[in-house]
Amino acid sequence: MTSPDLPTFDDVAAAAGRLQGHAHLTPVLRSRTADELLGAQVFFKCENFQRMGAFKFRGAFNALSRFDAAQRRAGVAAFSSGNHAQAIALSARELGIPATILMPADAPAAKLAATRGYGAEVITYDRMRDDRDALSRKLAEERGMTLIPPYDHPDVIAGQGTAAKELFEQTGPLDHLFTCTGGGGMTSSSALSAHALSPGCRVYGVEPLAGNDGQQSFRSGHIVRIPTPETIADGAQTQYLGNYTFAIIRRDVHDMLTATDAQLVEAMRFFAERMKMVVEPTGCLSFAGARHGGVDLRGARVGVIVSGGNVDMQRFASLLA
Amino acid sequence: MTSPDLPTFDDVAAAAGRLQGHAHLTPVLRSRTADELLGAQVFFKCENFQRMGAFKFRGAFNALSRFDAAQRRAGVAAFSSGNHAQAIALSARELGIPATILMPADAPAAKLAATRGYGAEVITYDRMRDDRDALSRKLAEERGMTLIPPYDHPDVIAGQGTAAKELFEQTGPLDHLFTCTGGGGMTSSSALSAHALSPGCRVYGVEPLAGNDGQQSFRSGHIVRIPTPETIADGAQTQYLGNYTFAIIRRDVHDMLTATDAQLVEAMRFFAERMKMVVEPTGCLSFAGARHGGVDLRGARVGVIVSGGNVDMQRFASLLA
Repeated sequence: MTSPDLPTFDDVAAAAGRLQGHAHLTPVLRSRTADELLGAQVFFKCENFQRMGAFKFRGAFNALSRFDAAQRRAGVAAFSSGNHAQAIALSARELGIPATILMPADAPAAKLAATRGYGAEVITYDRMRDDRDALSRKLAEERGMTLIPPYDHPDVIAGQGTAAKELFEQTGPLDHLFTCTGGGGMTSSSALSAHALSPGCRVYGVEPLAGNDGQQSFRSGHIVRIPTPETIADGAQTQYLGNYTFAIIRRDVHDMLTATDAQLVEAMRFFAERMKMVVEPTGCLSFAGARHGGVDLRGARVGVIVSGGNVDMQRFASLLA
Repeated sequence: MTSPDLPTFDDVAAAAGRLQGHAHLTPVLRSRTADELLGAQVFFKCENFQRMGAFKFRGAFNALSRFDAAQRRAGVAAFSSGNHAQAIALSARELGIPATILMPADAPAAKLAATRGYGAEVITYDRMRDDRDALSRKLAEERGMTLIPPYDHPDVIAGQGTAAKELFEQTGPLDHLFTCTGGGGMTSSSALSAHALSPGCRVYGVEPLAGNDGQQSFRSGHIVRIPTPETIADGAQTQYLGNYTFAIIRRDVHDMLTATDAQLVEAMRFFAERMKMVVEPTGCLSFAGARHGGVDLRGARVGVIVSGGNVDMQRFASLLA
């Protein structure tokens, strides 16, 4: 794709209007211990307290809100093994739109149940044998449904950007902002809000070390594709950035960093023990990047977006054990 | 003791001024699932996000702030196996006051370490052999230190009441307010704030079923003493209400309820899985009481104070397993 028509901060602001009364205004938490660790003032934007437990609700709800009457009747299709599935299912229920979600048959039972619990039809596929993209396109065509991808869509990006917009409204200007990067929706959209509301704020994306396709893309200037990375950050096991997200990241993001799984577990324990929060591994990327990414933060005002908290309790316990 | 000079809401308001810039203004979180469970609008005041992880910081800091110059020099003494120890230690450090805390030798290593980590001197005693009250009085006398008890003290109560004060300022009037009851500090102080800021709001204390001395006292009209109860709510293993707290509870509280340990675990799981929060067993009392206490909450605006989140991760995991 060549130079797509990129979403802007105006789109983020419009999305914020649509989300009012639907998304939670999530709190910004502080921790003196975190301040001491980083030698900075750290502001944690807690999207793990967002509806369905992750910032993904913002993008999904915004995208579905923009459906016209015919689209609403025909419904939405999506594919996801994670938070996007639940975000679409919940948003669709809220807006009275039928939803069909393609999920891998071996997805955690809790996620399948949660998505069905929000009223979506779930169709499972074989992760090894089936072509997910082809399946979902076929499904959307056959049923006349609109396919909403998990990140590479202007309305999804605009909705996701409302998290950072809120953060700046809650804290005022920041010097640095750390975000997690999977497909780049959170990182690119946060950069849109940062540049509008806190010019000069440096925005960072943080990926799992094992899945640093975004860092490679950022440095090489083109979208690099990698095999599905092995990492505990299941929300960041993406293989490549999107066309929209990459274009914004390349233009507006200061640097792309990485964190090891061990650093994610360390952050997870910090959040649980010191801040009393349940944060999923992917949600730990931003703080791990702030702590170990080599950026000099001394004396700075630092934003950290905690993206989500959807982790199975059994897994949570075993990671912290 | 006959009719002690009870703290009033004016004392709570004065405490709020002293706490400004020291205590966190903790967020009020919502959950649609909780609303559906109770058929009500539920507002969770999250004191698990308070400094050192519990509302106890508010009372300790207020009490120590009122020390005169001589008291500050001589220091503070306290006895506690739980959150009060850390609350006094942290407040003392913040105010530059020496602190000595008597703790049982078999207290969790993490709590001993945390209290020492805040700079307090920790003296351990044998829970079976030693008389804690006598030991602490002796210590305070010998060293000229001021002894601050964990709940039955006007300044401690006034400080603790700032949590409910903030809640009403954040939410507006409520119909019902659920609080945990150990020694009655949280319950009595919340009632002071409720009556001033939301007249007509019914305030409830919730105790572990195995340790319902407060309920017995409330019903009989005098302070009932019980053996140390066996319950997972370690912060509510108190044997009797205080003179101050009982007098306020008797006058201002609508009812005293109980919750079983199984109901506490259920609430703990709800907080972790649905609201992404780590809440200690004692902090689960209020929500368990709202859910199972037999109060008709349909259509009402309901406050639930989540008192703290200090639970060892190992224990947290094993309780949720």
